[in-house]
Amino acid sequence: MQLVSDAEIPEPPLFTAAHTWQDTPEQNVTQAKPGLSPAERVQRALGCIPDLPDPSSSSSSSSGFRRWTIRDFARAYGSGEITPVMVARRFLAALEECSGPGLNMAMFISCNPEDIIRQAEESTRRYQQGAALSGMDGVLVAVKDEIDCLPYQTTGGTRWLGKARPCVCDAACVAQLRACGAVLAGKTNMHELGAGTSGINPHHGSTRNPYDTGRVSGGSSGGSAAAVCAGLCPVALGADGGGSVRMPAALCGVVGFKPTVGRLSNSGLLPLNWTVGMPGILAATVEDALVAYAAMVDQSRPSHSQPKLNLPLLTTTRSMPNIRLARSAKWFDDSSEDIRVCCDKALQILRAQYGWETVEVTVPEVEEMRLAHYVTMGSECSASVATYVEKLNKSEIGWDVRIALSAYGSFSSRAYLNSQRIRRRQMYFHEEIFETADAIVTPMTAVTAYPLQDDALSTGELDYINAAALARYSIAGNFLGLPAITVTAGYDKAGLPVGIQFIGRPWSEATLLHLAYAMQEACSKDCRKPVVHYDLLNKEEY
Amino acid sequence: MQLVSDAEIPEPPLFTAAHTWQDTPEQNVTQAKPGLSPAERVQRALGCIPDLPDPSSSSSSSSGFRRWTIRDFARAYGSGEITPVMVARRFLAALEECSGPGLNMAMFISCNPEDIIRQAEESTRRYQQGAALSGMDGVLVAVKDEIDCLPYQTTGGTRWLGKARPCVCDAACVAQLRACGAVLAGKTNMHELGAGTSGINPHHGSTRNPYDTGRVSGGSSGGSAAAVCAGLCPVALGADGGGSVRMPAALCGVVGFKPTVGRLSNSGLLPLNWTVGMPGILAATVEDALVAYAAMVDQSRPSHSQPKLNLPLLTTTRSMPNIRLARSAKWFDDSSEDIRVCCDKALQILRAQYGWETVEVTVPEVEEMRLAHYVTMGSECSASVATYVEKLNKSEIGWDVRIALSAYGSFSSRAYLNSQRIRRRQMYFHEEIFETADAIVTPMTAVTAYPLQDDALSTGELDYINAAALARYSIAGNFLGLPAITVTAGYDKAGLPVGIQFIGRPWSEATLLHLAYAMQEACSKDCRKPVVHYDLLNKEEY
Repeated sequence: MQLVSDAEIPEPPLFTAAHTWQDTPEQNVTQAKPGLSPAERVQRALGCIPDLPDPSSSSSSSSGFRRWTIRDFARAYGSGEITPVMVARRFLAALEECSGPGLNMAMFISCNPEDIIRQAEESTRRYQQGAALSGMDGVLVAVKDEIDCLPYQTTGGTRWLGKARPCVCDAACVAQLRACGAVLAGKTNMHELGAGTSGINPHHGSTRNPYDTGRVSGGSSGGSAAAVCAGLCPVALGADGGGSVRMPAALCGVVGFKPTVGRLSNSGLLPLNWTVGMPGILAATVEDALVAYAAMVDQSRPSHSQPKLNLPLLTTTRSMPNIRLARSAKWFDDSSEDIRVCCDKALQILRAQYGWETVEVTVPEVEEMRLAHYVTMGSECSASVATYVEKLNKSEIGWDVRIALSAYGSFSSRAYLNSQRIRRRQMYFHEEIFETADAIVTPMTAVTAYPLQDDALSTGELDYINAAALARYSIAGNFLGLPAITVTAGYDKAGLPVGIQFIGRPWSEATLLHLAYAMQEACSKDCRKPVVHYDLLNKEEY
Repeated sequence: MQLVSDAEIPEPPLFTAAHTWQDTPEQNVTQAKPGLSPAERVQRALGCIPDLPDPSSSSSSSSGFRRWTIRDFARAYGSGEITPVMVARRFLAALEECSGPGLNMAMFISCNPEDIIRQAEESTRRYQQGAALSGMDGVLVAVKDEIDCLPYQTTGGTRWLGKARPCVCDAACVAQLRACGAVLAGKTNMHELGAGTSGINPHHGSTRNPYDTGRVSGGSSGGSAAAVCAGLCPVALGADGGGSVRMPAALCGVVGFKPTVGRLSNSGLLPLNWTVGMPGILAATVEDALVAYAAMVDQSRPSHSQPKLNLPLLTTTRSMPNIRLARSAKWFDDSSEDIRVCCDKALQILRAQYGWETVEVTVPEVEEMRLAHYVTMGSECSASVATYVEKLNKSEIGWDVRIALSAYGSFSSRAYLNSQRIRRRQMYFHEEIFETADAIVTPMTAVTAYPLQDDALSTGELDYINAAALARYSIAGNFLGLPAITVTAGYDKAGLPVGIQFIGRPWSEATLLHLAYAMQEACSKDCRKPVVHYDLLNKEEY
């Protein structure tokens, strides 16, 4: 902490990473005009997705495992062959199975079958009447238990916060999904108070990784990542204050997408911090990350400061945009050998296929940024939950979070202010990098999913080495409010997913989605099916 | 401090008091169009000032003491009878006299006679050539030693900061005054690091009050207030982070004006804090506060967020705007009896003359706001100067500031964040008040200038009782970034000036100047001459 308290920093503090809208032209996009409804934006986004062979058809047999997309669900529902109610029932059965003592996946904190069936019935009725609300109608979306969603309490992964802070209405992003007809499929498990990266939770069970149930899911949005990975829903919501969407996405082999700060509304998120966290998207495919993103963008700002919404025309064949990638060798290589090799290989494929060159850059003072972010997030968490925590019996809190809260409470105002000066300094550093490149590429994590220790299950776990390795590449997205996306680039020797990350300029979500889509398609032949996986659109099971 | 650390505050933090521009119509104003130069804005402001009888003419003999204005200087220079060089010489002689062991006023920290004479010679030449830059050409302006102004170091009232942090160019507001032809007349004394309200400074001498040299000037901009009070210059610059312009103005019987945060640029101010301080104006008359304000407004923002600039058409005879004043009896009356009576009487005069009604309001949680502001300013000062202070021998710092810095360094990040939540809460409270009133009226201070203790002169003084009484009414202007102005409303039984304060809505400077001008004129018959006073335009002395 001395690094932050006593640093000589010439910059004044930058208290939030809110970026003013700036119009950086993006290639191969279509602009959604302001004032569209969430459902209209979903339709615009669906129009940006290329047709691909049906994953169940023989023509794709040479490909690897392919996941169902929102469009697959909408087509099945539209044909009448499968209904939202059928899918919802299958979802509930699958959830029961994998939550039981056999698998013990601990992906959800709460799930109300009646509420889900009711939503699915309404959706089914709409399809029968030819009045589906959008291409997301009837599509299951799980919600991290840090985001308000009726009829559930919002526990934040604790035993007590749901009672202390009543949930009275849907979060803004949940309300937008509901308006598109999505079936909100319950509240997913998370690291307690988001104060950790493993997804180990002594109160609600530790979320297991569907690729290897003896390993962690990552966190804090571990339940959402695992649910998407296991095929329970094509999209889930998470919240990302320090990589909490992207890290579990990488460990579970799904897409994790954190747009620019301010793109999605924070209204209805637990205020565990005020200046680094925001909602994020976990999706089985880049296509679905795009659709969910389009549904949820916040367009409530005054018109002159309203960011324009570019939607990427996803393609692997037509004219791809010319994208310059920045890579810091020293930072990039500070990961396990499997990850380094895998991400490098993936970049080579992109270079071969699209001619995307990688320029070498330096990202200075990364360790200072990580500490400054830690002081910031911790101080804000402490100030935010202090009045609750003081009334609690400490035994209500897991050991690891008890220790974290005690560290958070020890930070000085000087360390906090110096952290904000480091924030401005890093903003300058990143602005410079973005003068020479369109995105920064890194591994998403420096390790893949690591084993769950039995003794951690009941107490929580403090593993700063793995935590630091998981969070090594995630901080700029939060501390500087930059958009960032992760997608699977391959697998390590143990067969565990390896995520690669692209960090973009403010408001360059379309470019990031292009990059992630290209990477997804380049790696599609090698895509592997998780050990725990449910095929909700498999007609033979109905 | 428990009040701040453990408070249950529902609001999220508001880290700065920056207000977005909002167009609230003001009455009896003229709008200066964007893009005017400082000199052009000065001319527009001079056009807003009514003609009044020459203070030296017999027709005003029934009036009290009247101070020379910028326009008086410009007229004298324009006529050629008196030149800027003559005034500059007289200024230097007066300064020498009152700085000597006889009076020991300690109003300036540094003053370079050659530089001042050179500026005055250039101005004199311009007048001779009929090429004056503006109505401020040749007018003396002193600058608080917290604001960069060449060729001086900026000491911040310390012994060491001038060397540790070189001054390389004029502050933005100084540069604008220079562009108008003003003669920058040296650097005025201040409370060490602005960390006090008395103006007692063990390193550069304690500024004495020109109304009673045995009493304090107030601070931290005490030198600027005393210099204007003593007639050495019609305008001086100060900086106001916790009333530091308005408090000494009130104690020295001059006008103190702190516009909306963001109206004037902070560029070139010592960064003693980042979120509560800004430049302010000390002026002998409201007319001159208007002219200096017009010269210095910052018009560098992007056009859509550029606040419009209303200049008040000052008048006491033509249609005055209809202004509603808010007054909180409990708060207003928490001052000495003399002050209460004097301010009440002044309000009665305004009511009688203009029909301005006073509505009773409650300003909730004023003490919480004062503490939250203290934590904020102290934390920011600590983070800002820490790297300098740690290298210092503690004996370089006065006792009172040593103790203050030690308190500042003890604040937790939680206290800082809770203080920012209180900031948002107070913003709501004040927005509500401004729905029923155009300005809040308070005394400026709860006590008038108090006696200088001999033993304080060499060590500095910690007098929390008088400090709290001085700062009682000043906080909203800083913590909430609201514009505020003080003007003399009368005198206490000891003959010491009593200041009244008007706090306005964001961007309502014109309304505040109307109010202050009305008050000044209403009290003009009773205006008293300071004991130490120099009449720089007195033709008989040349």
